[in-house]
Amino acid sequence: AINAQRINDTLQLSCQWGATPDGGMNRLALNDDDALVRRWYIEECVKVGCDVTVDAMGNIFAVRPGKQQGPPIAMGSHLDTQPTGGRYDGILGCLAALEVLRACHEAGYETKHPLAAIVWTNEEGARFIPSMLGSAVWAGVRSLEFGQSRVDEAGVSVREELERHRFLGVTASSHEAIPLKAHFELHIEQGPILDAAAHPVAVVTGVQAFRWFEIKVQGRGSHAGTTPMHLRHNPLTAFCQMALSAEQLAVQFGGLATIGRVGSLATQSTNCIIDDIVFHLDIRHHDDDKLDQLEAAIRESFAKIAAETLGVRLASWEALTGSQAVKFDPFAVDCVRNACKPYPKEEIISGAGHDSVNTSKRCPTAMIFIRCKDGVSHHPSEFSTREDIAIGGSVLLDAVCRYDSA
Amino acid sequence: AINAQRINDTLQLSCQWGATPDGGMNRLALNDDDALVRRWYIEECVKVGCDVTVDAMGNIFAVRPGKQQGPPIAMGSHLDTQPTGGRYDGILGCLAALEVLRACHEAGYETKHPLAAIVWTNEEGARFIPSMLGSAVWAGVRSLEFGQSRVDEAGVSVREELERHRFLGVTASSHEAIPLKAHFELHIEQGPILDAAAHPVAVVTGVQAFRWFEIKVQGRGSHAGTTPMHLRHNPLTAFCQMALSAEQLAVQFGGLATIGRVGSLATQSTNCIIDDIVFHLDIRHHDDDKLDQLEAAIRESFAKIAAETLGVRLASWEALTGSQAVKFDPFAVDCVRNACKPYPKEEIISGAGHDSVNTSKRCPTAMIFIRCKDGVSHHPSEFSTREDIAIGGSVLLDAVCRYDSA
Ligand SMILES: NC(=O)NCCC(=O)O
Ligand SMILES: NC(=O)NCCC(=O)O
Repeated sequence: AINAQRINDTLQLSCQWGATPDGGMNRLALNDDDALVRRWYIEECVKVGCDVTVDAMGNIFAVRPGKQQGPPIAMGSHLDTQPTGGRYDGILGCLAALEVLRACHEAGYETKHPLAAIVWTNEEGARFIPSMLGSAVWAGVRSLEFGQSRVDEAGVSVREELERHRFLGVTASSHEAIPLKAHFELHIEQGPILDAAAHPVAVVTGVQAFRWFEIKVQGRGSHAGTTPMHLRHNPLTAFCQMALSAEQLAVQFGGLATIGRVGSLATQSTNCIIDDIVFHLDIRHHDDDKLDQLEAAIRESFAKIAAETLGVRLASWEALTGSQAVKFDPFAVDCVRNACKPYPKEEIISGAGHDSVNTSKRCPTAMIFIRCKDGVSHHPSEFSTREDIAIGGSVLLDAVCRYDSA
Repeated sequence: AINAQRINDTLQLSCQWGATPDGGMNRLALNDDDALVRRWYIEECVKVGCDVTVDAMGNIFAVRPGKQQGPPIAMGSHLDTQPTGGRYDGILGCLAALEVLRACHEAGYETKHPLAAIVWTNEEGARFIPSMLGSAVWAGVRSLEFGQSRVDEAGVSVREELERHRFLGVTASSHEAIPLKAHFELHIEQGPILDAAAHPVAVVTGVQAFRWFEIKVQGRGSHAGTTPMHLRHNPLTAFCQMALSAEQLAVQFGGLATIGRVGSLATQSTNCIIDDIVFHLDIRHHDDDKLDQLEAAIRESFAKIAAETLGVRLASWEALTGSQAVKFDPFAVDCVRNACKPYPKEEIISGAGHDSVNTSKRCPTAMIFIRCKDGVSHHPSEFSTREDIAIGGSVLLDAVCRYDSA
């Protein structure tokens, strides 16, 4: 059984690296704090009898032997955070995996299959775009070359950071070099469903589809005091209409549309009409076809707005990343469902992308969600109770044991 | 008479400091390039027999003696530019003043009153807010302490930069220590009126009123993939409505409204709803009362939008700077009007603020505009022809001589 005190205390302990004064976290992938928490995590896994492999993307695989040889049943998530993130997103999954290993070790419990705790590199996509990068390379969704060559805003690459921190493993980052028997991931819901239902835990049956775009609207800067309103080539006017239109269309199609980054390539100045606007658009839907329709409607609307705004054009529209809707493995989901039996629960399709999206392409995969306060995530106020965290850890342990003994 | 070749060549020569590859200028106030062009300018003035005084705001007064003692008739403007500015805004006025001094020197022409060329510090307000700072301190509109303590985005102060470049003069920056008999300023129109009328030159009768504000809209960041559209606290949604509303109200009241800077205090991330939006609003009107009404209407509209957007509030609204509408001195304007006689001309109220707004409070002031292509300014494509520049220089010389001999 899970030690409720220990799982919570160790989770908070692990947040010493990257903590912010507002109670949140800023531990961008492969920064110094991320490197420190990874080293600490490896040491803790070694203490409970694990062999640790780091692959060429810096993904960490800590494997505890079972009675049989062969691929391990894995419990994976991520330790990186958003720049203004919380203490639970990803961190919970990795720390719960460690707790399962500790509990087995303490009880001298030998599983049939080996067990693995996995830390996937750069899940958030906040420092290096795209998100879920380490698991994507492992799953063959992205090439190693693509993964290692991603750069942050300062131009520093994943490979450079892996080398600097000595996390550039010699083992190939691939599902062939490092096969998994199954992948279970415990995560906070990051949404409002469990909180509204007052249920602690959910069986996650799949993940919705999403796409990211970088869009540039080009106008022409000029003087704020001398350019009459009707002669302006103002990209901000078009951008504002686009943002509101994308939100309306998302509601209309039953999906989501978010603009999370907005800026200019040119320097801005108080008395200058802005020259260009560059922004990121994130759209999501449970249904692949409906996401196609939403994207088409947004493209049509943006083109129309640009055409109707004097001297403004849609200068570029680049697809950054995306993923189809995913349905998790029925048997792995059943293991979670049975493990959830003791608790009031929901069945949820995840709104957020997770490393499990990638693992699901290569091994039976399922996820567990626990409730988070007000459904808030990617924010310093992100919070889950000690009780819910203990329930999540217990469900993870139980689901893994069910899969192991099947 | 003006040397048409020389005024144009010298203007382009002076743009070697701060030129950008796109043909524009980036010579922010008191940066290294601004210091270099100022030193060069002083040397050129000394060559034609000027005594140079630098005041405690770094304003440069190059005075050529006349037959009589007493305050000089000044020709002033600025050498600093926007970060993505052009080669004419401000620069033309300073270089035309130098050409007038050169022409008088060459001809051995002795004016009754001394003549002065003035370079005012930080007119643009792009590096140090507010704009027209050096002339504001000279005019007593702002205190010396206020002027020297302005900081740029990196926290560097005007005083530090003046010291670093040895431009912190010992003479007090004040209209009492350095009185002027009159102030004439030649400038590009920066707007579309002359270009549309196909006239080279305009008599400027005054300057419209303007106000700058810094406004913060606070929402709450959360996850782009999990937060339903109807539960978002998205400040961007409110901001977009505010921007569009401000533009509509400006049209309705016959004024201008521009948002030239927009960003966040929190770091942005593609899959996070933005936490806060901070932006600058610039509003202008020819009529002080109408500007009051426009401001009141915008305040009401923004408050309503914030109140109607879930979880979003107008967190702050700070006045940064502003100026009342200005009417220039009738006699000085008449000197310009008579000097413009040979050319097809317009009478214009300036849309942009100028150092002449401040000098007009302390001495008779008037301005001359020349045409610029498509009315574009504060942009690398800003352009005035060699012919129009020569006309502007001739009008400046003639207006100053008319004032001098009155
Ligand atoms: N779990 C999580 O926040 N992942 C980030 C990827 C996404 O944007 O959904
Ligand atoms: N002339 C000029 O562009 N001045 C800047 C001050 C303003 O914003 O009007």
